[in-house]
Amino acid sequence: MAASMTTTTTITCATHVAQHNCLFPIDHRLNKSGLGYLFETRVKIQSPTLSYSHVTRRVMRVLATSVVTPRTVTRKLSSDDFPTVVNVDLGDRSYPIYIGDGLLNQPSLLQRHIHGHKVLVVTNTTVAPLYLDKVVHALTVGNPDVTVENVILPDGEKYKDMDTLMKVFDKAIESQLDRQCTFVALGGGVVGDMCGYAAASFLRGVNFIQIPTTVMAQVDSSVGGKTGINHILGKNLIGAFYQPKCVLIDTKTLNTLPDRELVSGLGEVIKYGLIRDAGFFEWQEKNMQALMSRDPDAFAYTIKRSCENKADVVSQDEKENGLRAIGNFGHTFGHAIETCCGYGHWLHGEAVAVGMVMAADMSYRLGWIDESVVERVNNLIKKANLPTAPPEMMTVEMFKSAMAVDKKIANGVLRLILLKGALGSCVFTGDYDRKALDDTLQAFCKS
Amino acid sequence: MAASMTTTTTITCATHVAQHNCLFPIDHRLNKSGLGYLFETRVKIQSPTLSYSHVTRRVMRVLATSVVTPRTVTRKLSSDDFPTVVNVDLGDRSYPIYIGDGLLNQPSLLQRHIHGHKVLVVTNTTVAPLYLDKVVHALTVGNPDVTVENVILPDGEKYKDMDTLMKVFDKAIESQLDRQCTFVALGGGVVGDMCGYAAASFLRGVNFIQIPTTVMAQVDSSVGGKTGINHILGKNLIGAFYQPKCVLIDTKTLNTLPDRELVSGLGEVIKYGLIRDAGFFEWQEKNMQALMSRDPDAFAYTIKRSCENKADVVSQDEKENGLRAIGNFGHTFGHAIETCCGYGHWLHGEAVAVGMVMAADMSYRLGWIDESVVERVNNLIKKANLPTAPPEMMTVEMFKSAMAVDKKIANGVLRLILLKGALGSCVFTGDYDRKALDDTLQAFCKS
Ligand SMILES: NC(=O)c1ccc[n+]([C@@H]2O[C@H](COP(=O)([O-])OP(=O)(O)OC[C@H]3O[C@@H](n4cnc5c(N)ncnc54)[C@H](O)[C@@H]3O)[C@@H](O)[C@H]2O)c1
Ligand SMILES: NC(=O)c1ccc[n+]([C@@H]2O[C@H](COP(=O)([O-])OP(=O)(O)OC[C@H]3O[C@@H](n4cnc5c(N)ncnc54)[C@H](O)[C@@H]3O)[C@@H](O)[C@H]2O)c1
Ligand SMILES: [Zn+2]
Ligand SMILES: [Zn+2]
Repeated sequence: MAASMTTTTTITCATHVAQHNCLFPIDHRLNKSGLGYLFETRVKIQSPTLSYSHVTRRVMRVLATSVVTPRTVTRKLSSDDFPTVVNVDLGDRSYPIYIGDGLLNQPSLLQRHIHGHKVLVVTNTTVAPLYLDKVVHALTVGNPDVTVENVILPDGEKYKDMDTLMKVFDKAIESQLDRQCTFVALGGGVVGDMCGYAAASFLRGVNFIQIPTTVMAQVDSSVGGKTGINHILGKNLIGAFYQPKCVLIDTKTLNTLPDRELVSGLGEVIKYGLIRDAGFFEWQEKNMQALMSRDPDAFAYTIKRSCENKADVVSQDEKENGLRAIGNFGHTFGHAIETCCGYGHWLHGEAVAVGMVMAADMSYRLGWIDESVVERVNNLIKKANLPTAPPEMMTVEMFKSAMAVDKKIANGVLRLILLKGALGSCVFTGDYDRKALDDTLQAFCKS
Repeated sequence: MAASMTTTTTITCATHVAQHNCLFPIDHRLNKSGLGYLFETRVKIQSPTLSYSHVTRRVMRVLATSVVTPRTVTRKLSSDDFPTVVNVDLGDRSYPIYIGDGLLNQPSLLQRHIHGHKVLVVTNTTVAPLYLDKVVHALTVGNPDVTVENVILPDGEKYKDMDTLMKVFDKAIESQLDRQCTFVALGGGVVGDMCGYAAASFLRGVNFIQIPTTVMAQVDSSVGGKTGINHILGKNLIGAFYQPKCVLIDTKTLNTLPDRELVSGLGEVIKYGLIRDAGFFEWQEKNMQALMSRDPDAFAYTIKRSCENKADVVSQDEKENGLRAIGNFGHTFGHAIETCCGYGHWLHGEAVAVGMVMAADMSYRLGWIDESVVERVNNLIKKANLPTAPPEMMTVEMFKSAMAVDKKIANGVLRLILLKGALGSCVFTGDYDRKALDDTLQAFCKS
């Protein structure tokens, strides 16, 4: 496993930094075993008026085609110095995901993305005592021009609503933040989704940075720009597509995460394997035990590979006009469970895990996959200590009425992501036999 | 005046319509005196896979360079048949503004922009009894696939808030609208701004059509995609940039508009003259009387020329990174008045009128314009029966604290749009003598 892990260093162009006060990543992969080295490169910037986005785009193209072999190195580094960088390629809205152990101790990573004088950190009552000081320090050390405000929300999916969102606006307005300010989401997916939507809406859009601190947020929700809040009648029904300027993943923050939350995030990890990355699924079959025991290398790899999968899908279909919908595998059934059980009793990843089992069951009923795939899905989900059946109280009718407000309904037809063919292949379609859906619901519900 | 008025017909390409079930406008200007003719053109579409946006963009480029002389005509038309079309050129987010007398009687104009099966008309208690039936008819006649829901909001700027916005989401979700649905804003700027923001946020963005029914909305707010709601501490602080699929302006709807509302909209019309269209300002000096007496030709011209000015600015700077800010001329002072007086006591255009007088005063104090310009601004605003001084209760401190949350503050500096040079020229700058601002505030406030 270790042999397949690579790390990307950030290499900076001094001219560019001096001119624009920002860095951009250049690909430079090093084998993670042993210490890394910084390969110093000067990118010649042809025209002094070349904009940041142009430069970024050019560099990203280089990135995409660069080779993975180690290159000449010139300066020794501690392992903290070189984050893995996964790029989300979205033209002038492209951004880096920094992944590494202890990245909150590298102020430059955050500071390069702050352009105004004011920052609002949005977090919650659980995460604030753990990491708020660290983040404020990273934002302000050696940076006297920046002042940091914060708003600490109540913790929980049930507060992912309009009333709580208004607290973010209240704080932003009281603090007289202007369009140059930056919102920073510090926490799990709930904080990230809310802070992102607040950033999208405040003054019609301000800068936004994600610092995800749960597995769920690090492997999925912080990447790709889906933001929003819940409505009593359904999850994430109100929101925006709004991309962050960067995502900073400090894997050290997972040390304080409760087991149940850790495992919930693995639901999304299993998802990537099933929908598009059979190799990753197989890797998980072998390494689920390592993940369950919080092996740092296994986690580093899992987060990187998940972010690569997510970034790849998002860059092909930012606004979910097609392909990106596959990221919702298991989510239609899962959202129904979350909605019916009252937000928060079931964790998102737990509900998604059951949803994936149900979707696999339905795919099999349609004759689209082998029984062996259904078994492997069930086995891996059980290995991860995730549930494989909905709560007993849920009826077929409850599923149906919750699914009636799904975002993937088009002109009245509920489209589903279903597995089809070999492991790692799926389809997004409204063209399936309704009886298979009914049979699956019946099989998983008592009434 | 009549001689300078031109009308653009919509000419359709049958091949394209058949393939994509949508029309797009091709420029064809006819002198409005006398009856118009339809000039039937076939645009050769080179590749069958050419997307709608490509076609539109190509046609728009043709539009921009086409000549204004009448051309060969082949079929007689009633005047209802040919709306004026002003295009907002924003790449794949481009859209037409249809302007004409009685356009609500032309169902095809609306229907060509509806792609799903469900429409939600958002309107208010004043406008619904006047025009809702007409709009529902236009949407559904000969179109049995489409069902129309509606939500009727309370009337008034004070309801441009989050609680009222939630009513739109509630209705949309109860009606099980999906991503293919279309929201239609029927009403003035308040309904348009709220409906637009709801459309931007519902399921992270659904289709959206503007049917503005006030002068304010027809000359300004319905065009350009600024949407949003107020916060108790300031106007339009929460929102999104979100473009409609089309704007349909039926000038007949102005017949029911109260005089005070009519005149309020003229505030924005005067604004266009001052910031970028001296010729239009001069035209207004000569024709304000005609506008005040609701001369239909004068209004048709005013709306078209205003939309052209707005469309031009928006297409150069959609997200207000620079140029577009000039549309806020008079608005910093104006918003302060609106905020301090409680929304609704002063109409938006009334507050903007005073704001323009104050901004002209300040520009003169800075030595940037001649006294004669200040006089002409004051005279034209008086001719329009609009106020030229803030309410007596407003103090310098009230202005200052309201202006402290203005969206045009960048890193603590309040940038203003000020007149500079000849009539029709302005600057957007934070680089002015603070004393001039203080002096203006002092001159216009009792304390
Ligand atoms: N935007 C997207 O693309 C996307 C994708 C997947 C999920 N989501 C959303 O994400 C949400 C779920 O995210 P989540 O699973 O992170 O839930 P969460 O944000 O509620 O976090 C889970 C719990 O862990 C706590 N916590 C967070 N970081 C911690 C840390 N480092 N140490 C200790 N405790 C910590 C939180 O306070 C919370 O109690 C759902 O609302 C879901 O809809 C969004
Ligand atoms: N989005 C933008 O770019 C932009 C630009 C300018 C103004 N605005 C916003 O627009 C709002 C002001 O718009 P407004 O002046 O249209 O106010 P409004 O929407 O409140 O309408 C004014 C009044 O006229 C009524 N009305 C509307 N159409 C009517 C008709 N045809 N017949 C009879 N009555 C009718 C309304 O019900 C209301 O009582 C403000 O909130 C302002 O912030 C937005
Ligand atoms: Zn998920
Ligand atoms: Zn205005």
